[in-house]
Amino acid sequence: MSIFVNQVQVSFGDCDPAGIVFYPNYFRWMDATFHAFLHDRVGGHAKLCRDLGARGLGLMEAKLSFRLPATEGRALEFAIEAIEWSGRSFTVNYRAVQGARVILEGYERRGVFVEKDGRLAAGDVAPVQEILG
Amino acid sequence: MSIFVNQVQVSFGDCDPAGIVFYPNYFRWMDATFHAFLHDRVGGHAKLCRDLGARGLGLMEAKLSFRLPATEGRALEFAIEAIEWSGRSFTVNYRAVQGARVILEGYERRGVFVEKDGRLAAGDVAPVQEILG
Amino acid sequence: MSIFVNQVQVSFGDCDPAGIVFYPNYFRWMDATFHAFLHDRVGGHAKLCRDLGARGLGLMEAKLSFRLPATEGRALEFAIEAIEWSGRSFTVNYRAVQGARVILEGYERRGVFVEKDGRLAAGDVAPVQEILG
Amino acid sequence: MSIFVNQVQVSFGDCDPAGIVFYPNYFRWMDATFHAFLHDRVGGHAKLCRDLGARGLGLMEAKLSFRLPATEGRALEFAIEAIEWSGRSFTVNYRAVQGARVILEGYERRGVFVEKDGRLAAGDVAPVQEILG
Repeated sequence: MSIFVNQVQVSFGDCDPAGIVFYPNYFRWMDATFHAFLHDRVGGHAKLCRDLGARGLGLMEAKLSFRLPATEGRALEFAIEAIEWSGRSFTVNYRAVQGARVILEGYERRGVFVEKDGRLAAGDVAPVQEILG
Repeated sequence: MSIFVNQVQVSFGDCDPAGIVFYPNYFRWMDATFHAFLHDRVGGHAKLCRDLGARGLGLMEAKLSFRLPATEGRALEFAIEAIEWSGRSFTVNYRAVQGARVILEGYERRGVFVEKDGRLAAGDVAPVQEILG
Repeated sequence: MSIFVNQVQVSFGDCDPAGIVFYPNYFRWMDATFHAFLHDRVGGHAKLCRDLGARGLGLMEAKLSFRLPATEGRALEFAIEAIEWSGRSFTVNYRAVQGARVILEGYERRGVFVEKDGRLAAGDVAPVQEILG
Repeated sequence: MSIFVNQVQVSFGDCDPAGIVFYPNYFRWMDATFHAFLHDRVGGHAKLCRDLGARGLGLMEAKLSFRLPATEGRALEFAIEAIEWSGRSFTVNYRAVQGARVILEGYERRGVFVEKDGRLAAGDVAPVQEILG
């Protein structure tokens, strides 16, 4: 069972001259799914950062494997399937479907960035796990 | 009363370093609202173009007046308020709100582009008006 | 003569299924042209805001008239043609060409937004005119 | 030595409320770099598809590892470092820098999609390798 599902609208303008979704949009929707999840659980990224004294839950890595092209004009169900926690990063696993069609699978690896001596550095993710996990 | 309302998700990544929506996104959502309207009424842009023998319902002009900044993490209700038909173009009037807050007002002027002697030209909009009006 | 010209790369992914530029991208490039201009003249938006004690040079209105479709794979020359100053807003006029082809004309009306009693309000543009005009 | 380098403009509007580049834009620039490469070598994606009888050089997988945040207002040098060819896909390796700062590394795995019995399927990449390799 998914942890969270975000309904995404796939529009004409999201597609390229080949008639299929311009792939960076899938990453945009993956990020939007993460932020919708934060709003659902903790009132959003800004509030979470204030609570944690952090600058942002930024990206270290992002990957998507594209299985089938999404169809324009239909909702895409972008789901968080699992979150894996390690020392200074956590990995959010995603899967998106249109009905029975699996469109993509992938993940974001994120860190909790805090300012330290004027630079951004990845901090311990344990406090985030307590809140979100 | 609005002709059509499209629920738009406003996400963290749609905002700029000033913390407000990066304004080209409003135009993206205006276009998405038009295409959602086409899906609702006639099965989408591709089907409408096949029915009309046209290449696209392309843009001649687009304008937005920004009243108040939209808040991230909340739906934006992007509505079509009226469509005005003239000879070779039609104007779609929009208004977007978040609850009682009017976020923007504006319009798209669109033509029906057909290929003629290897070039795109704006054709008569009467057949579109019959279908959509 | 143009005040400033920004070379924009028009790529495959900027185009829609009709094979022409997805129009919100033109607004993205208009904004990028304004910010490139700020970098060229005053070291960027962030520096200008610090100098002015402002939150941002935000949008009140944006309009584009599309003359001819831009061709993918060729540079688009996005130019600032004139800036008109009034009390609490200024209007930046743009024109974009590919060679001899005029692709679009339009404008942004911007204000200087300052925080006042916890709200954003448009301030006097005279200090901006002194710097940019 | 890089196979190809694409100069990318990083603008204010490409950044998010945390003040750093909204990461899907890096994927947009990766794709734009691939298409700029195609224009440089073979006259663009459309021409290559006509030559190959293909529908598109579509994505199977895309991954980026983010090393350091890119600075707004400075060019990003997005480079193709290597292309690896296998049976029905090829992997394009990228690296992007701002001066001495490595911003990211990653890859796109692409296929040559051809229509076969009304469906898109990945064809042999050998003809693409002959042209691009």
